[in-house]
This record gives sequence, structure tokens and C-alpha cells, in this order.
Amino acid sequence: MGDFDRPDWSGRLRRVWRTPPADVCALVVSSPANIKYLCGFDGSAGLVLTTPDRTWLLVDGRYDRSARLSRAAGQLADVEIATLSGSVERLLSTLVSEAGPGSLGFEAHHVTVATFRAWERACPGRTFVATTNWIERLRIIKERAELTAIRRACAVTSDVARDLSRWVREGRTEREIAWDIEEAMRRAGATRPAFETIVASGPNSALPHARPTDRQLQRGDLVVLDFGGVLDGYCGDLTRMAGVGEVKAEARGLFEAVRAAHGAALAAVRAEAPVFEVDAAARRVLTTHGFGDAILHATGHGLGLEVHEAPRLGRRSESSGDRPGEPIDREMDRLAAGMVCTIEPGAYVEGVGGVRLEDDVVVTDEGCEVLTEAPRDLLLV
Amino acid sequence: MGDFDRPDWSGRLRRVWRTPPADVCALVVSSPANIKYLCGFDGSAGLVLTTPDRTWLLVDGRYDRSARLSRAAGQLADVEIATLSGSVERLLSTLVSEAGPGSLGFEAHHVTVATFRAWERACPGRTFVATTNWIERLRIIKERAELTAIRRACAVTSDVARDLSRWVREGRTEREIAWDIEEAMRRAGATRPAFETIVASGPNSALPHARPTDRQLQRGDLVVLDFGGVLDGYCGDLTRMAGVGEVKAEARGLFEAVRAAHGAALAAVRAEAPVFEVDAAARRVLTTHGFGDAILHATGHGLGLEVHEAPRLGRRSESSGDRPGEPIDREMDRLAAGMVCTIEPGAYVEGVGGVRLEDDVVVTDEGCEVLTEAPRDLLLV
Repeated sequence: MGDFDRPDWSGRLRRVWRTPPADVCALVVSSPANIKYLCGFDGSAGLVLTTPDRTWLLVDGRYDRSARLSRAAGQLADVEIATLSGSVERLLSTLVSEAGPGSLGFEAHHVTVATFRAWERACPGRTFVATTNWIERLRIIKERAELTAIRRACAVTSDVARDLSRWVREGRTEREIAWDIEEAMRRAGATRPAFETIVASGPNSALPHARPTDRQLQRGDLVVLDFGGVLDGYCGDLTRMAGVGEVKAEARGLFEAVRAAHGAALAAVRAEAPVFEVDAAARRVLTTHGFGDAILHATGHGLGLEVHEAPRLGRRSESSGDRPGEPIDREMDRLAAGMVCTIEPGAYVEGVGGVRLEDDVVVTDEGCEVLTEAPRDLLLV
Repeated sequence: MGDFDRPDWSGRLRRVWRTPPADVCALVVSSPANIKYLCGFDGSAGLVLTTPDRTWLLVDGRYDRSARLSRAAGQLADVEIATLSGSVERLLSTLVSEAGPGSLGFEAHHVTVATFRAWERACPGRTFVATTNWIERLRIIKERAELTAIRRACAVTSDVARDLSRWVREGRTEREIAWDIEEAMRRAGATRPAFETIVASGPNSALPHARPTDRQLQRGDLVVLDFGGVLDGYCGDLTRMAGVGEVKAEARGLFEAVRAAHGAALAAVRAEAPVFEVDAAARRVLTTHGFGDAILHATGHGLGLEVHEAPRLGRRSESSGDRPGEPIDREMDRLAAGMVCTIEPGAYVEGVGGVRLEDDVVVTDEGCEVLTEAPRDLLLV
């Protein structure tokens, strides 16, 4: 394994402080994915406090040994482990005092009001500055080691997609098929599914976020199959479509429209393209085919340590970081080489069903590289 | 199915407003588990706004149809569905204006600072009141329909525990065994694992929150097996121990100490008992056996729609709702008939390994009923 295939831990910490907000002397990182990105720690509870000079991982007794083992395994190299004896707030206030004067940044999208108020009480006289996407902005461009992991996750997910005809059959339930898919991903090397596998048949296919039920596949059904595996902490995410028995002309028309939209969106991906133009490319095609009202979600999202991360490939009015209503973040509004995202236009029509086709791509200067190459045809079973 | 076996949707909404904080005219519910409890909605995004007279479920376009289907299936009977056309904040402010004068309660532990600030901007002139455990306090006592679901989840989890000898063997990896356990739970009727199954062997057993690795089981290992299934939305949670080949006297001594602590904690459970007394009963036994320093977590936690919920069975100083540092909530500091919780003392010693034994119980006036009856002996393989 070359050096490029190792996560660049020290580079990541350095880049945190490349252009900090004015007067901020330290940042408290609460998002588990951001913590994992900065130091590799993977526990369900912990905080990172980082300053330009020093970085601490705050954990409680349950995770102290895990953290020390991670360090022994070469992770957490540039991070000091601070174990809680009392409350988090007390430890935080002690460490913050070592950060010198200045404001304390916090992740406004990842801290609850209750936690924030406890921090404020524990650090009297310290000003807190709400930050948005500070670490997400670094994560948006993938390092080589990250791309290697994502390629592997996408390869495993794609391989399972090639085998879908083994499991998708009339009379089987959505749940049975979902389990078979998850089992196959694990056998192929995934540590876990990136999200609860979606198998949505017939009327359920018209629900973009359906959960698998005990419904048996019936002749005439469209079936949405949306799944992904996690490898080395990174996610794959793919959607393919099946049709059971004879699929009506209406459903086939819907499939062809989404397929065309998918192609148009893929063609719009390239470094420097505004994210909303990719979404607009898909919407134009669907609208032309008469399905403008059947679009219920954005055309894509970033992919990495989380299955939904920045950038969001939505409409211009909502192409703004990770939450509606937030100020638009210009750095996340244009694609750039090294970003990884899904392209997944969908259209959902009551009485006909839903169709979604989804692939994962790395953005390049000229366009993109597709990481999920399993055939996109309507799988007829 | 009798009426008692149906969730008491209208009773739940009524009980929300039994003793509201002074001047609060409406509550915004953000916690997915609390939303599910109040109206059955199970999507990953949504809000409930409830007033003494009316209750709304706010969803976006992706969930609008799911919500309408749930209603058609008999759920959401007393809840109006409000679908977003613009931002959440705008819809919220429109609905809040129908609530009349008064303050707006919100769940301080479940709302991020960013979201809260957006709500404040959208509802100028409206006072927001931070609330803690408002809905959790209702959920802590289980209805008959909930107990039925939990019993089923525990029965499935227990049945799988009885079969552990089929999968736990020298040379197999933690991950392989974890997958077998999850597959068996699904075959037995679980819709999903309640949490990522823990199989922690040898040195990993000393980490209370270990994740399964590719480590192969070796002779002399202690193995922690911690898993649970979800049925009808409710969780089971159980831990059993295995020993591979000859287990050293030291490890066996640790097992026997934890087993005695488990028995002592179970014996301390009854309605009206302070939660910290159950924890103290387990600690006393472990301390007597010389393992006072090896205790890394509380003795138990509530169980229901979430795998960790109120009450927390920890030390007196931390037996306070769901977050350390919060004011003690007297209503959640004593056990009461109809609460469901885990009893799971553990002790973790570097160089020897870790032992945890965990069962799920319903609190009764006289003591408790154990729901996970699989044998607790050290499984020798």
C-alpha cells in the first residue's frame, strides 16, 4: 500500500485551519462522520476539540480503550485522547481554556439546543460561533485513499446488482428480496448495508422512501431496488429497476423517461458545473416526457463516509448545503474534480408506479467516471 | 385482536396535554421515536405539531403519500397531514398561528441549534420553551399493545440466543458470527436488528462497545454476544457469553462475579425502587469480587421503540433523564409497573477480557418479569 492509500490524517487537521472564521480559536466537532474523518475514531459517542496547534478526542470510559487501541493501530496519530472523569462540559471547559483567547466554533447542524446550552453554562465568558459545513467542506473533495474505498464499495454494490435476477421473482416478498441483497453484499465483503435496503414493488414503488414490506411481487409490478454496501467506512448507493411479467406500456414509458433523464444528468456532470444544472438537466427530460409533476426528490447527493452528504444536486432554490433554509454555500454549489455523488433521477406516478435509476460517479475535469457499472436495463423477471 | 392490542393513539395525544408546562400552547415534536409514538409515522423526516385541540404531521413531498397510506391503514386517525410546499419553517409558522397565544414548546434534546434558530426567525414574537422528556415521560410506561410487541421481540431474540452454539466456534470470525445471528433473527421474524450486533472475542471483549471484526475466535477467548431484534417497531436486547476451549480460572471468576451481579440487580427491580439502587446492587457485588474498577457502564436502560430510552439505571449522580448534566427528572428516577428495561451489568479487565450478561424485564409491583429466558450459563464451545 503506497502512502497515497493511507488517509491523510495530519493533512486533514491542517486543512481545518486553512481559512478559519475570524477570531475563532477552536472548533468543537460533534458530527460522528466529521469526527471519523478527522481522526478515525468510530465510536457512537465522542467529541473532537481542535485548535491550530492541538487536537483532542474526548471520550468516556466506554471508549477510552477503543481509542487507545486505535492509536496503537496507527490512527489518532496527531490527536490527544482526553477521557472523561466528570461531565463532558467540565472537560470541554478545561481544554478550551488551553486554546487561548478567541471564540469557540461549534457545528450548528450537529449540536442540540440542550447540549449547546450546557456548553455555554460550562464556558462562561466564552463566545460561541455557529458554523456550517466547516468540516463537510473539506470532506467534499475525496483523497486518493477515500476514492479507493468508495471504488471498492461501489464495485461490491454493482456486483450484487448484476445478480438481482437470482432473487427478484413473482411471489417473493419485498422483505425476502431485501435480505438476500444485504446478505449478498456482506458475502462480497461489505461490513454493513449503507442504509436499509429498499425493495418497493407495485404501488409501493410510487413511494420514494418505501421500506420493504411483506407484499409479494405480482405480475405487472415495477420494482425499485435501492441498496449499497459499506467498505472501509465508505458507502456505495445504487438503484436498479425490475418488472414482473408483462409490464404495461405506461410503466415502460415511465422507465424510458427516467432512463433518458439519468443519461442527461450524467452528461451534465463535470468540474465547475453548478449543481443545480445537473438537477435541471434531469427535470427538463422528465418534464418533456410529461412527468414534471412526478419528481419528488433532488437528482443526487454526495457520497462518502455518509450515504447522504454534500453536495446536494437539487434545484437552484434549494442547492444550499445540507438543510433547506440555510444560506447558500458557494463552495458547495459547483461541482469540482474529486467530488463523489449519486445521479438518481426518479419519477413517481400513483396508479402506475415509480422508477428511479441511480449510479455513483466521481467528478472529473472533463465529465465524470461512473463507479457502478451494472446494467441499467429494466430487468424483466 | 382485542382493543387493548391496538396502540392507543388518541389516548397518547390526550396524555401529552395532561400537565403541560405553564403557558405552552403547542409542542413541536422532532424526535423520530416520539413522532412514531404519537401517530405511527415511521419516515426519516417529519415533524409533529400538537396542541390541546389539534395535531398535525408535517411531511415533505417524499413522504406525503406514505402518510396518506398510513392513514388509509388506520393510523394517523387523530392527526392532520400537512404537506410542505415551501420550507418547514414557513409551514410551521402558519400552523403555529392557529394554536392561539402562548409559548411554543420544543424538544431541546432533539433540535439542533441551526434548526432552532430557523424556527425562531420564522415565528417572530413567539416565545420558545425548551422541554426535556415531555413525550419520553409518556413512553416510559408501556401500554398493553406495546408490551405485546416487546414480548415478541424478546422471544425472537431469546430463541436465537438458544441457538448460539450453532455459530460460535474456534476459527470463525466475529463478523461471520454476527451475520449468522442477524440472519437468524430475521428468519425468526425480526424486521431488522435493533442495533449493530456485537460479537467481541478475546481482547475485544474488554471493549464494551466493540464492533465485530475479522478476528478469528481462539482457544481461551471469552466472547461477548450482544444482539436484539425489532418486531412491530419494538426492540429486544440481550447479551450472552461464550468461552472457547478451556477458559482460564481468572476469566471464569469474572463470569461468576458478573452473573452474581446480574442476579442481585434483577432482585432489586420492583415498582417504586429508585433506579440507582438497581445499579448499586450490581456494583456492590462486583466490588466485593474485586472488580469495582472494571465497571464501565450503567447497569441498564429503558427499552421500547428505541433500544436506549428512559429510564437510565445508573449511579445516583447520573440517574437523570437521558443526558448527563441535565436536571434530575423525578418522574424518571423511580421504577414503576409497566416500565421495560435491560439489566446488564458488565466488567471489563484488560488482559482477561470482558463479561456482560443482559436481560430485558417488565417492572411489576412485586418485582419483575424476565422477557429473555435463554440460558445464562457460560456457553463452552
